[in-house]
Amino acid sequence: MCEANAYYIEDGDEELIMEAVDTVTPEPEGILLTSIFGDQKLVKASIHSLSLVDHKVYLQKNG
Amino acid sequence: MCEANAYYIEDGDEELIMEAVDTVTPEPEGILLTSIFGDQKLVKASIHSLSLVDHKVYLQKNG
Repeated sequence: MCEANAYYIEDGDEELIMEAVDTVTPEPEGILLTSIFGDQKLVKASIHSLSLVDHKVYLQKNG
Repeated sequence: MCEANAYYIEDGDEELIMEAVDTVTPEPEGILLTSIFGDQKLVKASIHSLSLVDHKVYLQKNG
């Protein structure tokens, strides 16, 4: 399976937010992370960058 | 490998932009797509959403 781990990225530091993320969808307040297990987390952030072969999704917190 | 295909998404329609994308990184003008083969494409867009198990990255064109 090709899920990925989602991290906040800030000043080069990575903070793990959710493992095994399948979908990331936009919401009025930010983005909704949904894992392959069905877990969901709404975060006030946007997608910063991706490193898919390394299974990493980087998020940046909203201003 | 867990690369994905990148699509423009607009009014529910998908337009394939690049196959086998590994990294997506922010640039001043938009985002840089890099495939697992090293091909690169700079697009004036942002990441809209992800569907990783389906190997899909959706982009929305900048305003």
